[in-house]
Amino acid sequence: MIKVVFLGFGNVNSHLLNALNKNTEISVIQVFNRNYIKLISSFEHIQFTDDISKIAEADIYIIGIPDDAISRFSESLAFQNKLVVHTSGGAAMKVLSSKNRRGIFYPLQTFSKHRKVDFKEIPICIEAENPNDLGLLRKLGETISENVVEISSEKRAKLHLAAVFVNNFVNHLYEIGSEILNEEDLPFDLLKPLIAETASKIKTLSPEEAQTGPAKRNDKKTIEKHLHLLTDSPHAKLYKLFTEQLNQKYGKEL
Amino acid sequence: MIKVVFLGFGNVNSHLLNALNKNTEISVIQVFNRNYIKLISSFEHIQFTDDISKIAEADIYIIGIPDDAISRFSESLAFQNKLVVHTSGGAAMKVLSSKNRRGIFYPLQTFSKHRKVDFKEIPICIEAENPNDLGLLRKLGETISENVVEISSEKRAKLHLAAVFVNNFVNHLYEIGSEILNEEDLPFDLLKPLIAETASKIKTLSPEEAQTGPAKRNDKKTIEKHLHLLTDSPHAKLYKLFTEQLNQKYGKEL
Repeated sequence: MIKVVFLGFGNVNSHLLNALNKNTEISVIQVFNRNYIKLISSFEHIQFTDDISKIAEADIYIIGIPDDAISRFSESLAFQNKLVVHTSGGAAMKVLSSKNRRGIFYPLQTFSKHRKVDFKEIPICIEAENPNDLGLLRKLGETISENVVEISSEKRAKLHLAAVFVNNFVNHLYEIGSEILNEEDLPFDLLKPLIAETASKIKTLSPEEAQTGPAKRNDKKTIEKHLHLLTDSPHAKLYKLFTEQLNQKYGKEL
Repeated sequence: MIKVVFLGFGNVNSHLLNALNKNTEISVIQVFNRNYIKLISSFEHIQFTDDISKIAEADIYIIGIPDDAISRFSESLAFQNKLVVHTSGGAAMKVLSSKNRRGIFYPLQTFSKHRKVDFKEIPICIEAENPNDLGLLRKLGETISENVVEISSEKRAKLHLAAVFVNNFVNHLYEIGSEILNEEDLPFDLLKPLIAETASKIKTLSPEEAQTGPAKRNDKKTIEKHLHLLTDSPHAKLYKLFTEQLNQKYGKEL
């Protein structure tokens, strides 16, 4: 039985609690949060505290708070020599206070409040200062995911950067698509099958194999037409930059 | 029974043939292509010709060739006053020669050679010069899709522009993600669940509701760290532009 305490209760930790709580090998002992939170009824058996001096005894403490706050918070913990991990993609392991044994438990996924996620396929990136702790984190990860991988803080930083491109920036392109349609009173729904297929393609094709479109085939007329449609639009800059890069990549001059 | 002839046999027309051929209300009479093509065995009953003077009699002629070539090709057809449509998102209806009745049959999807697609959910955007032809195109569309919509050439141009953002540009961001991981010897597979969830989210959330990440929450430290990781990278420009736009959108200054 692995005893777990959650420190902070944002999106990541609440999804993690949900996933870990279903497993009989895991006992979630307590949730600490600076502000009072009412846990939903299926978690009623779990202790809640907002008092940092009353954090319970556990095998693993999982910090889920903003990156900027991790360092100071971990320093303020009253106990020592316990395994304390954070769940952030962007923060190094060493931001954690060295008074406890440090580790990382980073589920590489985008979490929204009202969306259920299936952890089975989510990569859990782990890191620890010693092999025992790494083993314990692997065991914890494997209770919810089939894809637990050891990744150093350095590589994780790059992974997080890549995640920003394929998640936040991709989603911003969805926003732009939605805006363009909105201006024409066309429903965003029209783009949804295309969005789904674009994402689905790269399960079996490499992004290079999947690429199509006017920029790749250097279809100058279409590109000019699009730039004309984007006159005075804030999105012209992105259009030009993407088109430039795609042209460079596929070896044709504009 | 609607008799159809395909003029040109690229990705769009071959997928359309595949879908239409299954339907008993449709009879695909002939495929014309400038160069010889061996049709796969399930299409053996369909006539093939590479001789433009031997194009068969049909109710609808579907042109699937590069945008630039549509105008001249449609002018070179030997017959008159027939319904001739093209399947392009980016070309106006009026690029077709006026010697035939003109129309549009544009399936809004990305088609790759070796990927099967389910037409049921694909929006088919139709347009025609007269109500009868529009009705016929609607009937044709509804044999394969549940989403046939009449859209003018003007609005279709914007739709196609939006499609470039959510398909080609999104795919380019996948390429960048893949490159960043590649440099660290990390497998692209790590990003696939994130990519799938990012696309899946907007089925039920608006892109605005779905947005997360350092640029939205103006997490300056992470942004600086990422820009540092992108020193000398060709992707720094895109990172900056997206971050700028996300900051503007979500009302926080960098």
